[in-house]
Amino acid sequence: MSSRIYLDNAATTPIDPLVVEAMMPYLTEHFGNPSSIYSYGRENRLAIEKARKSVAAILNAHPSEIFFTSGGTESSNTAIFASVRELNCKRIITSPIEHHATLHTCSYLADLGEAELEFVNILPNGHIDLSDLENKLAKSDQKTLVTLMHANNEIGNITDIQKVGELCKTHNAIFHADTVQTVGHFPIDLSAVHVDFITGAAHKFHGPKGVGLLYINGKNKIHPLIHGGGQERNMRAGTENLYGIIGFAKALEIATAHQEKEKEQILSIKKYLKEQLTSQIPGVVFNGDPDGNSLYTVLNVGFPQNDKTEMLLFNLDIRNICVSGGSACSSGANQGSHVIAALNKAPQATIRFSFSKYNKKEDIDVLISNLLELI
Amino acid sequence: MSSRIYLDNAATTPIDPLVVEAMMPYLTEHFGNPSSIYSYGRENRLAIEKARKSVAAILNAHPSEIFFTSGGTESSNTAIFASVRELNCKRIITSPIEHHATLHTCSYLADLGEAELEFVNILPNGHIDLSDLENKLAKSDQKTLVTLMHANNEIGNITDIQKVGELCKTHNAIFHADTVQTVGHFPIDLSAVHVDFITGAAHKFHGPKGVGLLYINGKNKIHPLIHGGGQERNMRAGTENLYGIIGFAKALEIATAHQEKEKEQILSIKKYLKEQLTSQIPGVVFNGDPDGNSLYTVLNVGFPQNDKTEMLLFNLDIRNICVSGGSACSSGANQGSHVIAALNKAPQATIRFSFSKYNKKEDIDVLISNLLELI
Repeated sequence: MSSRIYLDNAATTPIDPLVVEAMMPYLTEHFGNPSSIYSYGRENRLAIEKARKSVAAILNAHPSEIFFTSGGTESSNTAIFASVRELNCKRIITSPIEHHATLHTCSYLADLGEAELEFVNILPNGHIDLSDLENKLAKSDQKTLVTLMHANNEIGNITDIQKVGELCKTHNAIFHADTVQTVGHFPIDLSAVHVDFITGAAHKFHGPKGVGLLYINGKNKIHPLIHGGGQERNMRAGTENLYGIIGFAKALEIATAHQEKEKEQILSIKKYLKEQLTSQIPGVVFNGDPDGNSLYTVLNVGFPQNDKTEMLLFNLDIRNICVSGGSACSSGANQGSHVIAALNKAPQATIRFSFSKYNKKEDIDVLISNLLELI
Repeated sequence: MSSRIYLDNAATTPIDPLVVEAMMPYLTEHFGNPSSIYSYGRENRLAIEKARKSVAAILNAHPSEIFFTSGGTESSNTAIFASVRELNCKRIITSPIEHHATLHTCSYLADLGEAELEFVNILPNGHIDLSDLENKLAKSDQKTLVTLMHANNEIGNITDIQKVGELCKTHNAIFHADTVQTVGHFPIDLSAVHVDFITGAAHKFHGPKGVGLLYINGKNKIHPLIHGGGQERNMRAGTENLYGIIGFAKALEIATAHQEKEKEQILSIKKYLKEQLTSQIPGVVFNGDPDGNSLYTVLNVGFPQNDKTEMLLFNLDIRNICVSGGSACSSGANQGSHVIAALNKAPQATIRFSFSKYNKKEDIDVLISNLLELI
């Protein structure tokens, strides 16, 4: 069997061995409960606070605005529930191409009658129609939550959160930016963006699964989603996922230190794949705005729909090439991508290729030769 | 510096090296997203389902009733919120000595006016007054949630959940048992107890932090606390904490395999400490019911209050002996234990000693000689 080619890094990434190394002491000898008052617990509390400061510095936020959660989904749930139930947003403006962590939370609240739900228009290239957002914000005086992702996990489109933040500021709206695909991949300067909540997940940038980030702008005073002990300064109860938090900070530090170099390297792989597909496979289309404001880690491709391309995911899997049709979080149901559906594309066999620092140009050559055999 | 003596195992336990060993492949080569449809993801889905089956078999539940969460606190929050908001409980009966994960969640709901909150009486020995529970259940026709812990984390008292379950059945009440201190330490046969929800946390039985268990009786159809992707059969969204789940199951398997032997060994340490304290330190009292229905892992001691005992936690810490005044989850605030306060004891300096399979009789000898020097 050929060695595996992993091109699904938007679903999850391998942990950097340096991150595992940083976590190991806390999985073995340093096991004290960070909330215990003896030194053996306090040392771990210090390690957590050091991690928090590091994350805060990288995002240019205050450490008191950084909270560790169990993942991006919990973070988005906390932000959205708090906006409606604590910050009195009676209306939510989101987009049809958000992650299910956002969409399902919003529709749950809408179904309960706790908030009105509006969807901003998506342009044919997958970008948010910002003038539509502006119109929707202007047409109502209701306190509004705007929840839009910084970068789309399926098609890679990046939204100008600076601009969205300004619109939200003008209209006194709360702004939650799902930054799960951009934290660790792009510089984020929270002092320069008008945003109330952002979210992150370590496993998207070579950190561990099961740990996430929630930034809460200091001006927002809210109750936690999960009540109990006073952990995370009363914002997130439960014994801290100590090694996860250490791993989150270490992974973000590594990602930030090498961001420019890795961006260049990964972007060259994305461009190379796009060129190869264009020149070698007739009829391919690219969803989103791959040459524009887009993740360098994602290329979403529409293959002409036929017997062969319908089996493409299956056959690539057999050849040990990992790619996906859409988000892993919704792939189990195999019900097709709600993101591609929202773009009103002609029928196509959609595949998302997503890259990391561990991919090489040779991976693309192997992929292309397999695609040529299969199609 | 003397080597550390760790007697705070009710706060958290060291991970068993065999558990770390079982987790490592998933922290390194097996990193695929369990929700991805290719084999490299499906293998991890299978590993999670194998873990779920193992946990279900040990607890004598159906695998479809077992859900993995980020910890005991999230599990208790899910159970309590769902009981009130989904299963229409308008009244909560709990006790004043529950964990804050329960108490703070209940009081949050009561403050919002979503449920009436009643506290069952506690007997002087720390046990729940079951006849008071019966009276409280009988006096109202309102749909009621009874949330009581199986074993108290501070004083160790064990409540007869079989009996509580029968009372709840008779009065058509929902029963949530916080079993965080007993899962892995006592046999739990869920087919024999009328219970709607139980909770667990791996780090209480030599598993990793950041992963918990929620058992939901199959007859209860509820929405998740955390919305998003379809993970955990739509009951708990978010990319699975893969290594955490593997670690949870492995830790529970190990704990179960050696339960009888370890119970005997640990109980002998608890008894030895109680004998030594009684014979060597004048005026000590024991909180709870240490010789009765009690955790073999916990001994809660009241020392006569004076200048020396007030500094005891501090001075034991300096001597590298880890013990606690109460729950780690509330110790940060150093506001005294709500559990001891509820027992209406004469003023005392309270210390909880809690044990694991890694403690030896020699640890107790060192502890006693230090106590004799300090008091």
